[in-house]
Amino acid sequence: MPLNLELLKKDAGSSARLGKMTTAHGTVNTPFFMPVGTQGTVKSLNPEQILNCGSQIILCNTYHLYLRPGHEIIKKLGGLHEFMNWTGPILTDSGGFQVFSLGKLRKITPDGVIFRSHIDGSKHFLTPRKAVEVQEALGSDIMMCLDECTPYPATYSETKKSLDLTVQWAKLCKEAKTNAEQALFGIVQGGTYLDLRKQAVEEIGLIGFDGYALGGVSVGEPKEIMYAIAEEVTPKLPEDKPRYLMGVGTPEDIVYGVSCGIDMFDCVIPTRCARHGLLFTNSEKIVIKNARFREDNGPIDETCDCYTCKNFSRGYLRHLYVAGEILAMVLNTIHNVHYYMRLLAQIRAALEENSFTEFKKTFFNKKGGF
Amino acid sequence: MPLNLELLKKDAGSSARLGKMTTAHGTVNTPFFMPVGTQGTVKSLNPEQILNCGSQIILCNTYHLYLRPGHEIIKKLGGLHEFMNWTGPILTDSGGFQVFSLGKLRKITPDGVIFRSHIDGSKHFLTPRKAVEVQEALGSDIMMCLDECTPYPATYSETKKSLDLTVQWAKLCKEAKTNAEQALFGIVQGGTYLDLRKQAVEEIGLIGFDGYALGGVSVGEPKEIMYAIAEEVTPKLPEDKPRYLMGVGTPEDIVYGVSCGIDMFDCVIPTRCARHGLLFTNSEKIVIKNARFREDNGPIDETCDCYTCKNFSRGYLRHLYVAGEILAMVLNTIHNVHYYMRLLAQIRAALEENSFTEFKKTFFNKKGGF
Repeated sequence: MPLNLELLKKDAGSSARLGKMTTAHGTVNTPFFMPVGTQGTVKSLNPEQILNCGSQIILCNTYHLYLRPGHEIIKKLGGLHEFMNWTGPILTDSGGFQVFSLGKLRKITPDGVIFRSHIDGSKHFLTPRKAVEVQEALGSDIMMCLDECTPYPATYSETKKSLDLTVQWAKLCKEAKTNAEQALFGIVQGGTYLDLRKQAVEEIGLIGFDGYALGGVSVGEPKEIMYAIAEEVTPKLPEDKPRYLMGVGTPEDIVYGVSCGIDMFDCVIPTRCARHGLLFTNSEKIVIKNARFREDNGPIDETCDCYTCKNFSRGYLRHLYVAGEILAMVLNTIHNVHYYMRLLAQIRAALEENSFTEFKKTFFNKKGGF
Repeated sequence: MPLNLELLKKDAGSSARLGKMTTAHGTVNTPFFMPVGTQGTVKSLNPEQILNCGSQIILCNTYHLYLRPGHEIIKKLGGLHEFMNWTGPILTDSGGFQVFSLGKLRKITPDGVIFRSHIDGSKHFLTPRKAVEVQEALGSDIMMCLDECTPYPATYSETKKSLDLTVQWAKLCKEAKTNAEQALFGIVQGGTYLDLRKQAVEEIGLIGFDGYALGGVSVGEPKEIMYAIAEEVTPKLPEDKPRYLMGVGTPEDIVYGVSCGIDMFDCVIPTRCARHGLLFTNSEKIVIKNARFREDNGPIDETCDCYTCKNFSRGYLRHLYVAGEILAMVLNTIHNVHYYMRLLAQIRAALEENSFTEFKKTFFNKKGGF
């Protein structure tokens, strides 16, 4: 088995669960959040800093690495772990989401997606088999099936057709898999239609994967719909396998997702916000360039023990950001990733202490609900 | 005394010297090189990384910090050391060089320089007194006198007039100084005219400073002229005070400067080259984006033990650089600064072992001379 989930506790007041997930590159505590390392680097951080932020596992994007530097080159250089010098687990997506986001630059066929590179316009054909082949070359611990990410909004029949394609591709991905060390996750689509989601759970579950993801969420639908899907669908997924809410999300989304029984999250929010000077704190999100921080000698967050908060003032961080300094990106990213990691650690601690329901209530009261 | 130089050894075959310089923020080994932290940050590095590269002391630019965030704000935030969290010594320039570089945006008067900010066009008047006042607010360990940086080329009479102004300003700077913890260095101008340089050494020396800099070098003059000035003028400077060759330079310039008796150097070359993907090695300067590094699994330099060389391949560094990743800047800067620091450590070791002449010969043979 390339992946094992050990469930340690189930919350009494929700579907939340605490566990340990073991992969070829080590064991991580669930629920967890994966910082995004799109091009083989969590933007601005070196691996030591990623680790020091509390990150256990990261996500890399197959689409980007396939185009540049190319999966074959990464394979020659020892695989993605050695390439980027990250010794912990890595999850790679299938490349599908990025390809579908290309809009006019791509065309979907029953066999896969024809697309043009956003870098040089070169033509490529991404099939289920190819998606697995590329991820096997990268050597990630968890691979994702190629799926069609159903857009929002979509009609029932469009969504059903799209789901059927995703199920068919999932079978092909499983058949294509050759490496026993790497796990492969199936993706549940079905848009905003709960009966289609239910169908997806059954059909993808029947094929049988090492874990299951909810896809096609956080793609523009209202938050209540995403929450309703997570709440309805997650508990129907196989209990003994990890459950992954793809591309999610805000701190609020994560706390809610955990209460639905989700074990895994990833999102560019902490890293991207950091580069735009938007910093998370326990009480508010702050815009560091704001003039009110000009002479502020305090840390971003008094309660935070990240490298940035322990060593630098808001006044200095404001200066670095306004001056366009690279160090602003680094220090802000350290803080935001650490904030997310601390949130997940708090969630796990609450589950451990049987106080998750209370934690969730306090969290949403403080944040003003969703 | 805000600064003390202890001379440990003098080279038998050149004017080179080995020593220890003590400042308010600690003792550093001479000769040394200062990485440049223009806006209160050595671009892309945090203080831990600067230290891990082997840096003992850094330089910051008064002009930039005066304009943004402002010296008064830095003072309120505890001074420059606390602001940027650098506990070692800091040298600040006077702001003069940057102001003179503004070209049409500045006007020189006998009392100082009127200039407009490159950031917002606001009008400022930099006088000798003001230059000291700003540097005292910053709290640097070593302050520099405001001087007129004589351009190259300049006629004899232009150079003499400029030198006289620099001497007059040096007196005013010394008078303006109020803080006994901070050292103040005089600057020797005189352009390419050795008799004017000699006059400058005498007049600036008579005023009396904690150290002496050669200014107006590396401003476009042929390298042989810079070397001739360094060789002729440096040994005439007071022997018991540190000697600083401002804005210099390449590894070759540094080895040559040391042989002339220079103790201190600063330059943006290692940091700026790093950000442009130009990396120093023991045998060549490499352009990391070169396609020949695409599948290269070796480090930048086999003989280097910097964080970058210990952990990442040329193939990965090429990928990061081509992909425009922030981490490329960070890792390249670590390597180049470490390269400079290692060079200075090798120079000091050679002086310690009475083998500097041999070191210099080997160095220039390998580099193909200058």
